[in-house]
Amino acid sequence: MGDEHVKKAAILSIGNELLSGRTVDTNAAYIAGRLRSIGLPVVSVHAVADEEGTIERSLGLAAGEADVVVATGGLGPTDDDLTRQAFARFLDVELVLRPDLLEKIQQFFDRRGVAMPTRNSIQACIPRGAAALENELGTAPGIRAERDGKLLFALPGVPAEMRHMLETQVLPQLQPLVSGQALAVRRLKCFGAGESTIAEMIGDVMRRGRNPLVNCTVHLGVITLEVVATADTQTEAQEMAEREERSLRSALGSLVYGVEDQTLAEVVGDRLRRTGRTLAVAESCTGGLLAKLITDIPGSSEYFTYGWVTYSNEAKTRALGVPVATIATYGAVSEPVARALAQGARRTAGTDYALSITGIAGPGGGTEQKPVGLVYIAVDNHDGTETSRHVFSFDRGSVRLRAAQTALNILRLRLDLTGPVSM
Amino acid sequence: MGDEHVKKAAILSIGNELLSGRTVDTNAAYIAGRLRSIGLPVVSVHAVADEEGTIERSLGLAAGEADVVVATGGLGPTDDDLTRQAFARFLDVELVLRPDLLEKIQQFFDRRGVAMPTRNSIQACIPRGAAALENELGTAPGIRAERDGKLLFALPGVPAEMRHMLETQVLPQLQPLVSGQALAVRRLKCFGAGESTIAEMIGDVMRRGRNPLVNCTVHLGVITLEVVATADTQTEAQEMAEREERSLRSALGSLVYGVEDQTLAEVVGDRLRRTGRTLAVAESCTGGLLAKLITDIPGSSEYFTYGWVTYSNEAKTRALGVPVATIATYGAVSEPVARALAQGARRTAGTDYALSITGIAGPGGGTEQKPVGLVYIAVDNHDGTETSRHVFSFDRGSVRLRAAQTALNILRLRLDLTGPVSM
Repeated sequence: MGDEHVKKAAILSIGNELLSGRTVDTNAAYIAGRLRSIGLPVVSVHAVADEEGTIERSLGLAAGEADVVVATGGLGPTDDDLTRQAFARFLDVELVLRPDLLEKIQQFFDRRGVAMPTRNSIQACIPRGAAALENELGTAPGIRAERDGKLLFALPGVPAEMRHMLETQVLPQLQPLVSGQALAVRRLKCFGAGESTIAEMIGDVMRRGRNPLVNCTVHLGVITLEVVATADTQTEAQEMAEREERSLRSALGSLVYGVEDQTLAEVVGDRLRRTGRTLAVAESCTGGLLAKLITDIPGSSEYFTYGWVTYSNEAKTRALGVPVATIATYGAVSEPVARALAQGARRTAGTDYALSITGIAGPGGGTEQKPVGLVYIAVDNHDGTETSRHVFSFDRGSVRLRAAQTALNILRLRLDLTGPVSM
Repeated sequence: MGDEHVKKAAILSIGNELLSGRTVDTNAAYIAGRLRSIGLPVVSVHAVADEEGTIERSLGLAAGEADVVVATGGLGPTDDDLTRQAFARFLDVELVLRPDLLEKIQQFFDRRGVAMPTRNSIQACIPRGAAALENELGTAPGIRAERDGKLLFALPGVPAEMRHMLETQVLPQLQPLVSGQALAVRRLKCFGAGESTIAEMIGDVMRRGRNPLVNCTVHLGVITLEVVATADTQTEAQEMAEREERSLRSALGSLVYGVEDQTLAEVVGDRLRRTGRTLAVAESCTGGLLAKLITDIPGSSEYFTYGWVTYSNEAKTRALGVPVATIATYGAVSEPVARALAQGARRTAGTDYALSITGIAGPGGGTEQKPVGLVYIAVDNHDGTETSRHVFSFDRGSVRLRAAQTALNILRLRLDLTGPVSM
């Protein structure tokens, strides 16, 4: 498998907001990850301004570096959206108004009972000879064009629209291009230990040039180990990746909570659903974030019934029966209050499990005895209540997210002990 | 002031992790924002792999587009860190070992009581004739070089090290370059209408080449209008931006909710705090997200006391007194249930205001009469209850976020009517 046969892609991110510091380009990383997963490596990402000449030049640059160019952004209806025009110029053709696309845009507004603003008709224009990509979630169709054997795509910059179009239309068109290059990627998600601890537990598997290659990334306490195996055939690559996964799992034990893009909330929800158990939560410093993470999961109403954001002391007492004396004696951020919140939530909601969090998210409110970042977590079920004390660092957002994730992880480990679970 | 006098910058982000989808390039947005704040606009960002030839070519490309190139990444001690070598090749000089830099790296390890790994000595090498930038937070010195009148910087990819070096060494060196170019930037945040409606309301201010220039971006329903005024003096630029802001505000009225990076939750919280009012929320489909957005704001405990995530019908009835008959007759997703939730929340929590949300976030649970995305929102205070019906689109995440943001916006408009507010 020589390098000269490996097809490559380049990404073009279009938009002034990417150059002003206002917007972090998350689309590029998403696209790069997805292209790589089908065996199409990305060689460069270029972010450029909403200027016709600049976009046209960058298309030339990207097409010079790669076989496939995926551009995002600049397909909106306003005067500063110039990707369509730049594609036409690069392809050296006119923009033509496609009545069928106009009809679809019209229908999009009709469904919302809103009159279509005239300026949206520009979105029905695509370069002559190019194909339109349907946008099921918005008004801007995408574009698929070819020049000198290079394949060029323009997708909307709105992440949800871009992702849907990429998954349903772009990746299926690219798949046949890359057959013959066998690559298997497997991701293991871990929670409960730091990066260096995990690195020590798994030995030297991360050294360069190894096959399978193991990469380690950390994001908000979740550690992702990515296994990339390359081989002559897909079966062989798959087998190598699976062998590596088994070896990592045996080294890391219960630190591994899931695979691919699974979240802790998804894994916990899945176990609750399978075992027919239910859950309620009571939160103070996380202010709704724990319930939000749980209900991010479609179908979570099967096991999640009830959440309280008891932000004031009065709410803790009135809603969940935390004794005034307990708060007065130990403070709202204390082990006895965490315990009483979880017990009160389970009793009031009538669920099998309850989780509670009370802490100091900051930036204000910390003392020497109880610093910003101090968090108590409790989990309650018919076997009793288990509490733990944590000190999380960084800023308000990180403390809140780490607290909510840690609560989910504590529940996950508790479910492992009590419920019969098959993975 | 002609365009030909405006100095420009380009950013080069170096690292395989940026092309694999593993890492989102947050450094580029940070650098772009800081350069722009001193009046040095960024014309492009290029992310490339850790390959010597590729980095060298990209340096040429970036230097061709801009007067200043800021590169990050690839200064580590391992074999895949090749930025130093690529800079030397681009400058057509050798890498030379600087004993003073080696001494500092050695000291860095000494302070930690750790032996310096041999491989770290590569970090003491910089291209002949280039200057070193001190790294107070890590081992890799930065590089400052010149070629053909273009200024080139190499900074570490570790965000904390990069930021510190940028602030303390790079920006002070660039400041004199850009004096004479005065730039004033002002952002208006809008909510409650689509991009094209807003574009029609403000006329042709977004046309290219205009000064002040107005850019429009949309993110999760929030529309940001950015006004960029350029002039010979800072005072003049500031006045132009302010005049433009007044004109946009008068065209858009109450669609403008804030400025700069303000969120709806921040603006609503600010008004509640100033007027001494309190708030409770009851959520169904948003599952804690509304409370989470409100409590994202430090100090929100001053006005936010209580939140319920009444995810099941039983929770709606038991916690907030929504009559079983109302749910049976109209369904959980209905105007009467939204109304009863808001009234129940205000009564139970004893707050001045209550917001409620009930809807179908999807992907399941929709019917012909009640499609996915249907959401009822209610706001209640002593003047009465106001309800509204909405249909949001895209996916579960978007429906939930749009619903929560819309609820905050409804409360904002209600607060404008009832509370004495000075901006």
